[in-house]
Amino acid sequence: MADAYEEIRTWDQFRLRQSIRNGDYTAHTAGLARGTLQTNVAIMSAEHALDFMRFCQRNPKPCPLVGVSDTGNPMMFTLGADIDIRRDIPAYNIYRNGILDAEQPDITDLWQDDFVAFALGCSFTFERALQAAAIPLWHIDNNTTVPMFRTNIETIAAGPFHGKTVVSLRMIDPSDVDRVVKISKNYPLAHGAPLHIGDPGQIGITDLSQPEWGDPVSIKGDKVPVFWACGVTPQVAIEAAKLPIFITHKPGHMLITDVHEQAEVPNHTTNPNQHGETS
Amino acid sequence: MADAYEEIRTWDQFRLRQSIRNGDYTAHTAGLARGTLQTNVAIMSAEHALDFMRFCQRNPKPCPLVGVSDTGNPMMFTLGADIDIRRDIPAYNIYRNGILDAEQPDITDLWQDDFVAFALGCSFTFERALQAAAIPLWHIDNNTTVPMFRTNIETIAAGPFHGKTVVSLRMIDPSDVDRVVKISKNYPLAHGAPLHIGDPGQIGITDLSQPEWGDPVSIKGDKVPVFWACGVTPQVAIEAAKLPIFITHKPGHMLITDVHEQAEVPNHTTNPNQHGETS
Repeated sequence: MADAYEEIRTWDQFRLRQSIRNGDYTAHTAGLARGTLQTNVAIMSAEHALDFMRFCQRNPKPCPLVGVSDTGNPMMFTLGADIDIRRDIPAYNIYRNGILDAEQPDITDLWQDDFVAFALGCSFTFERALQAAAIPLWHIDNNTTVPMFRTNIETIAAGPFHGKTVVSLRMIDPSDVDRVVKISKNYPLAHGAPLHIGDPGQIGITDLSQPEWGDPVSIKGDKVPVFWACGVTPQVAIEAAKLPIFITHKPGHMLITDVHEQAEVPNHTTNPNQHGETS
Repeated sequence: MADAYEEIRTWDQFRLRQSIRNGDYTAHTAGLARGTLQTNVAIMSAEHALDFMRFCQRNPKPCPLVGVSDTGNPMMFTLGADIDIRRDIPAYNIYRNGILDAEQPDITDLWQDDFVAFALGCSFTFERALQAAAIPLWHIDNNTTVPMFRTNIETIAAGPFHGKTVVSLRMIDPSDVDRVVKISKNYPLAHGAPLHIGDPGQIGITDLSQPEWGDPVSIKGDKVPVFWACGVTPQVAIEAAKLPIFITHKPGHMLITDVHEQAEVPNHTTNPNQHGETS
């Protein structure tokens, strides 16, 4: 299995998505198709889509919108030449009235003519940049899921979408904090700069050893807790809205796009290095 | 008059917006309320709002969305504590079926329960940053309007919204080009890095001396033409959509917000210097 995973890590996004579409690859996507933007996904009726876009616009750090489908069209044509949002994610969660109802490897049978699919940037992008800068990330080095916490920071509501901001935690060496801020700020489509640095109590977190999602970290020495806005925030807001049906990716099982992860604009037809990368 | 303008330049955004709301200040807003984000504005029925938001999401360089109202609510509450989009712009253009029909200083009489107002970042923001870096901008130094051109670059359509990308031109000293790219790239909510540098013919512009909007520049010496995506692009796309009614600011007569012009997130309740500005 480890060998198979090593081989899959060498696949490009086209080969990987084909394998996902065929139903062969059904696991998480961390570390795969390096260099391409991976995204969270939320699918809902057009009736709620304007409010959800407002929610994303108003809360861009937890909800960096990188793509939206036309109503009823499952092809995410701005993110790739051949991305079918009904089939190209390794696993889907189906919610009914705000409650997780089922998990499926394909949602072709559930697709509706009034569905709109949203793709939101995720932390994989800035984590890769931090790793490239030799910043240790405990959860990756220890093969666990990043710890996530509900804060006391209200999102700005839009229609039925509302709730507290969820953050992810990374423990950073004090000497690296400035660099971590500077690097992650370069990725506004992947949560950008940290939302909070230091005292967890200031944002309503009482116990760092008890994350609400993900795994606790066990770190020795003098590290600083650094919190980033997290893609679980829109998930919680959609659950709170109790839509009759909405569909997301299964956590960690992301949409893999054709967009370069350093692209200034999340559009696969734009060459990210043509302009704006000269210095 | 010059004296009066000098005094108005010292006003903060609250005093200036009050004067606009009262109908006293009706002129352009260039150089006013320094330090705050100014925006383009488009107002249309909710029926078209989802497609227009898609258009902005798909074309973020010409259409950097920084605020959107709730349906029927004229208060742009994410951009300021007391911004009434019906009264707080110096002059409005009213379009019917895609044709400019009237100019008004106030649109309270035209407001509809199904209207949605959009605020889009504008070039004033990055121009100020360029000036602060001692980059000369000919149109500002000569008190003219920046020259704008229709390119051959198609926007990504959404519903009825489509058209070519419009760019603004600034002639830059070759030794400053790298710096100009780097500085403007820091303002993704104000068109970001240039769309094109150098040969105008490559983007379908045949004669730099004949801009379609604004005034031609007259520059001696060896300068490089640098083109930025321009806020006239959504204007052209909305005209092409031939909506029964849509309303915009009169060009140059912008919405002045309470958002700091260097804010990472366009939200007046967020302190832009709290995080992410430590380095």
